[in-house]
Amino acid sequence: MARSLGRIFRGFQSLCSVPFMKTELSHPCSSMFRTSLRTMAVLPSFFSFKPRDFSLPNSSWGEEMMQLYKYYDSQCEVKTDGEEGQGGQWKRLPSYNRSLKYATGGVYLSKIIQSKARLFTRNVRNPGAAFEYVLFMRKDEQKCVCILQAGHLLEGPPGHVHGGAIATMIDTVTGTHASLLCAPVVTANLSIDYRSPIPLGSTVLIESTVDKREGRKTFISCKVTSTDGSKLHTEATALFVSISVSHLLRG
Amino acid sequence: MARSLGRIFRGFQSLCSVPFMKTELSHPCSSMFRTSLRTMAVLPSFFSFKPRDFSLPNSSWGEEMMQLYKYYDSQCEVKTDGEEGQGGQWKRLPSYNRSLKYATGGVYLSKIIQSKARLFTRNVRNPGAAFEYVLFMRKDEQKCVCILQAGHLLEGPPGHVHGGAIATMIDTVTGTHASLLCAPVVTANLSIDYRSPIPLGSTVLIESTVDKREGRKTFISCKVTSTDGSKLHTEATALFVSISVSHLLRG
Repeated sequence: MARSLGRIFRGFQSLCSVPFMKTELSHPCSSMFRTSLRTMAVLPSFFSFKPRDFSLPNSSWGEEMMQLYKYYDSQCEVKTDGEEGQGGQWKRLPSYNRSLKYATGGVYLSKIIQSKARLFTRNVRNPGAAFEYVLFMRKDEQKCVCILQAGHLLEGPPGHVHGGAIATMIDTVTGTHASLLCAPVVTANLSIDYRSPIPLGSTVLIESTVDKREGRKTFISCKVTSTDGSKLHTEATALFVSISVSHLLRG
Repeated sequence: MARSLGRIFRGFQSLCSVPFMKTELSHPCSSMFRTSLRTMAVLPSFFSFKPRDFSLPNSSWGEEMMQLYKYYDSQCEVKTDGEEGQGGQWKRLPSYNRSLKYATGGVYLSKIIQSKARLFTRNVRNPGAAFEYVLFMRKDEQKCVCILQAGHLLEGPPGHVHGGAIATMIDTVTGTHASLLCAPVVTANLSIDYRSPIPLGSTVLIESTVDKREGRKTFISCKVTSTDGSKLHTEATALFVSISVSHLLRG
């Protein structure tokens, strides 16, 4: 794949990748957000089964995770079939464990697809063992929040979350945020300051904020804190560059 | 745990954590390297079974991975039981999927240990599905090289490795390197420039080099390239800070 393919298709990480292939292909900076969520409704026609949405609660979610989920979910827009959502300050972003298989028109992307492939953050079947998370985006698109419950398979230092697992979630949250503002994007840089370790099993908040946008560049900052915000675990900045879709599929 | 615990016990990520607990506890900057490898010989007395060394070849390793493994392994020192290794420019670093359970004297570290916990980079049982890697350290301790075969469960962009998985390996390689120079250390910063995507299933080289050491700080640079070095995938810098062991166990 061309270098410019980069770390493309970022939106796919949380949105199952289909949206921007379905939308304005010649206009990568068109507003993705409403279209992305709307497009999810047609997903079953792309897959042979209805994919599981990992952003919904399961039995492994602890009390802290559930409380926060309910808090943000209660502030989400109310949707009716085939309609745009109404009201609410936040939108929940669905999340799947498979990437794009088909482009518009049912063309199988055989060059870049492996049937066994699974999204890195959703590759463990056992609920609660690895990453349990859900993302919400504020309606003005300037902020995303992610509730993360870190399972026992994410260990780095004994009893604590691996720095790479933290980096993975920061990459996921900021990348999803950038891709919703201006998909498709590639990550140019990720700079992470580790301040305080995260105990395995704990629930944390990951918040991303748009700092500025300059032409094709989007600068996002991110912090990982305890759920009450009192303890700062990690800070990061990320730079994303939007690219044209024609670049993406050049092999 | 105290903030200073940070992302400690880094050495454990590849060395199963036992070494520095067995060595000069009051002297964190003492030469860890020979002691670490020597200590591995007594591991079975710490565990109820002999742990699997994941740095050794398995049936999932492809031809490219095996060729590179053999290349570096052939340049490793030859060891005899109970003796220091002789000759050779490189040392292979063993790698396990469990962290420290007991400190010197058999004290169970209940505060920070969960029996189910597994090292993030070694948490998938199916060989070849996720991270397959082996680290070698040059005898002058200025350079480490890691051979990585990226499995299908590491997907980010369709058909390519997740940026978080790349960050995870950079964190693992540079962190292991720093901890061998001056354990224990905490990661202070990780800055990553993504240049070119890594196709799933491919084998790459990750090389870390010590840039400078200033007091308790160790600056390490890292790059991820194709196995022949012709293609640069990722560049990174990492800053580690050594801390005293007395800090580590303050709860």
